[in-house]
This record gives sequence, C-alpha cells and structure tokens, in this order.
Amino acid sequence: MNLGKVVGTLVATRKEATMDGLKLMLVRHVDTEGRETGGQVVAVDAVGVGPGELVLVATGSSARQTVATQNRPCDAVIMAIVDTWEVGGVEKYRKD
Amino acid sequence: MNLGKVVGTLVATRKEATMDGLKLMLVRHVDTEGRETGGQVVAVDAVGVGPGELVLVATGSSARQTVATQNRPCDAVIMAIVDTWEVGGVEKYRKD
Amino acid sequence: MNLGKVVGTLVATRKEATMDGLKLMLVRHVDTEGRETGGQVVAVDAVGVGPGELVLVATGSSARQTVATQNRPCDAVIMAIVDTWEVGGVEKYRKD
Amino acid sequence: MNLGKVVGTLVATRKEATMDGLKLMLVRHVDTEGRETGGQVVAVDAVGVGPGELVLVATGSSARQTVATQNRPCDAVIMAIVDTWEVGGVEKYRKD
Amino acid sequence: MNLGKVVGTLVATRKEATMDGLKLMLVRHVDTEGRETGGQVVAVDAVGVGPGELVLVATGSSARQTVATQNRPCDAVIMAIVDTWEVGGVEKYRKD
Repeated sequence: MNLGKVVGTLVATRKEATMDGLKLMLVRHVDTEGRETGGQVVAVDAVGVGPGELVLVATGSSARQTVATQNRPCDAVIMAIVDTWEVGGVEKYRKD
Repeated sequence: MNLGKVVGTLVATRKEATMDGLKLMLVRHVDTEGRETGGQVVAVDAVGVGPGELVLVATGSSARQTVATQNRPCDAVIMAIVDTWEVGGVEKYRKD
Repeated sequence: MNLGKVVGTLVATRKEATMDGLKLMLVRHVDTEGRETGGQVVAVDAVGVGPGELVLVATGSSARQTVATQNRPCDAVIMAIVDTWEVGGVEKYRKD
Repeated sequence: MNLGKVVGTLVATRKEATMDGLKLMLVRHVDTEGRETGGQVVAVDAVGVGPGELVLVATGSSARQTVATQNRPCDAVIMAIVDTWEVGGVEKYRKD
Repeated sequence: MNLGKVVGTLVATRKEATMDGLKLMLVRHVDTEGRETGGQVVAVDAVGVGPGELVLVATGSSARQTVATQNRPCDAVIMAIVDTWEVGGVEKYRKD
C-alpha cells in the first residue's frame, strides 16, 4: 500500500454506472517522513476519510477487494486511515 | 485512478477481434493542479468523452470492469468525466 | 495501452512450454508526438506486425486476454496496429 | 519481488474490516548492493519479521496469495525474510 | 516482459510455505542494446537459468501462470532464456 494524504475531493456525474455513489478523493503520496513525493492518485473512499488525513491506498486488483469497490472499474481505494507510524522507534506521525 | 486530459483519437483497424467497435483516446496525465505531468496512455472510452475533457482513467485489470471492456485485452479505460475538483477547499477545475 | 514502435525480434528456445509458438517483439515506447520515450518492452505479437510499425501494447493481466496469450506467463501483448492518430485535430502519424 | 528493509511499523484502527489483525510494516526498497533506492511501500507481514530485517515484498494480485492476505485489499506483502544473497559469486548480505 | 540479466541468487528460509523449493534469482534489467538500466527484480526461476544469462521476466499476475508459480505469492518469474535478439536487422545479442 502507499502512504498518502487526502488533499481534496472530485466530482464526476458522467461515469460507468457501477461507480455511482462512490466518493472520489484526491490523494498525494507521502514518504516515511510524511513528505509529499510528487505522486498522486484519485482513490475511492472505502472508510470515511476527512480532509488532511493520512491514509493507506491499495491499487490494482486489490483495490476491488472492499465492499464498496468489488467488480467496479476502480484501481485505487483508501482502505485504512493511519493513526500513527514509527521509523526506527521514532514516531513520525500521530493523528490528532 | 489517474486524472487525465483527452487530447486526441487513435485508429487501428488491424487488432484483436474483441477490440472491434471500441473508441481509442489519447490521454495525457495531469496533476491535482491540472498541469500535464508528461505521462500518457491510450485508453478505451467507456463513457462518451469529447476532446479536451478532463477524465479519470482506470488501469490494469480494473480497466476490464466496464460493460465495454470486459474480457478484452484492454488495460486502460476512461470510466468517468470530471465535473470539478477541489484541493484544500479551493476549486481547481470546473467543466464548462 | 502504450503506444510503441516495433524495433526488433527476440528468440528464446528454452522457455515455459506454454510460450511455444509465440512471436516475441522488441517494442520501444513512443509519446503522442511519436518520439521514443526511453521505455521498452518485449511483447507477444497477437496481430501479425512488421518491423517499424506503430502498435498498441496491453500489459498486466490484460495481456492474457487474447486468443494467443490466455493462461500464459505473458505480461505484454501487441493487440493492435496503429493506422493513424491525431492530437488537437492535427494528424501526428499515418501508416504508409 | 522487490528487496526491501523493514524500517518501521504503522497502526491504523479505522480500516476495511478484512484488514483487522494484519501487521503493517514500513519497508524501504534496497538494490542488489543493499543500498536504499528511495522507494518505499507499506506491506502486510505474512512471515513474522523484525525491525531492520531484509525481506522480499510481493505486490499486486500476488500479494493476496498468502494465508494472511487472501481476498483482502492488500497490494503488498512481505512473504520472505532474506538470509543471504550473492552477486557474481560475491556475498552481498548475510543475516546476523 | 522485461529483458534482464541474471546476476546472482538469493536464499530465504523463512517464507510463505508455498514458496518452498523455488529458486530465487537477482535480475538486473537491460535495454535493447543490452545495457543495464538501473532497474532490478528478484524473480523465481521457472526454466533453469545460469549466472550471467539474459532472460525474460514476466511480472504481476502473469508471473503466476507457470507450473512452478501458480497460486503462489510470486510477482516476477523468469519464463524464458534469450538466445538472440536483433534491432533493425542488427544482431544485438547471441548466447554463447
């Protein structure tokens, strides 16, 4: 999974019918220090995220292994909200 | 999914038979500011796009999860036309 | 799919048995202006290409969705020969 | 598979239900000389790794082919702990 | 598929049980001129390669389409040993 930060939302009314009702989020990738890496993805929200939250994004066929996304043309899904992580025993991020 | 801009069309008469009748579009990737990133893809149009529109492209096996593309050798599909998106509450794009 | 140019052929006699009889082509990626991008792939020919032709290459599990490649350890297939494409209404390529 | 070094752990309590109980590790990619390449991934631990260990990470649908990860929205799994490797007959790494 | 050169071997005794008995090879990617590109992968050997050989590596779900790798958490497999390739009619490589 990729670490990412939810930076915005996207609306698309004309789409494949099976995508109806799914919430689309703009996510920027971050590294293990929490810095943006320049990468980004539009991901379906499967867990109820809010703006600015750090999340995990699963891609490819694994993005269809949630209740919200199965059998849909979805290749990226937010499947977890990060509480905290540490590197070498040093806490790098903690959700407020 | 990747954000992209539809910049052109492509014609290929000699192809795997299951690809007959599908419309092939040239799409350039854009970032969350709407700027082209240098990446590009040829994607099947599953939603009826027009030139210059901003779209979402699903890739990999997820590209086969539309009515138009199932069981076909298609690894990229336009499955949504973007109306608008915002980053940090600031609107970055709105379809005319 | 990726745009590519067929630049050569490859022979491998010792291989997974299911790959027997498949023609392997060297393909260099090109952008929407027809310029080589530096990327490359070895792809199975599913459509009967010739040297120098511009083609579409499908990758991943989608590369196994042709008659030639199903259930084989093939992650890249040439599934179309390009006749022409245009960007912004300007023709960028036409097959001779 | 990618070579990687386990550098930390990540906690996410709010997530797709099927991810409950899985341990999430921060892994930095290393090259065949053991040097970090700048890439990274959050992977499920399927083998019981410890901090600092060198591991193999499988991605994509292959990340779901372990007992721990099947049918889950997981696109990266640690499926082996590296004991040693050699390049050109020269040992490059040996686990303590 | 990617062109690669077998540069070494890797041993991992602690791993997902289904990976037992598979031989793991270090492969560096090469371009159509035979030059290393900087990329690398750890791949299962499905064909019996030797050190220094030029090979084809299939990745993703296609890496599980060999007798050795099916249903295993393997995302890269050596499925062919290259005998020769040519670019523009000029032979670039021939196995000794």
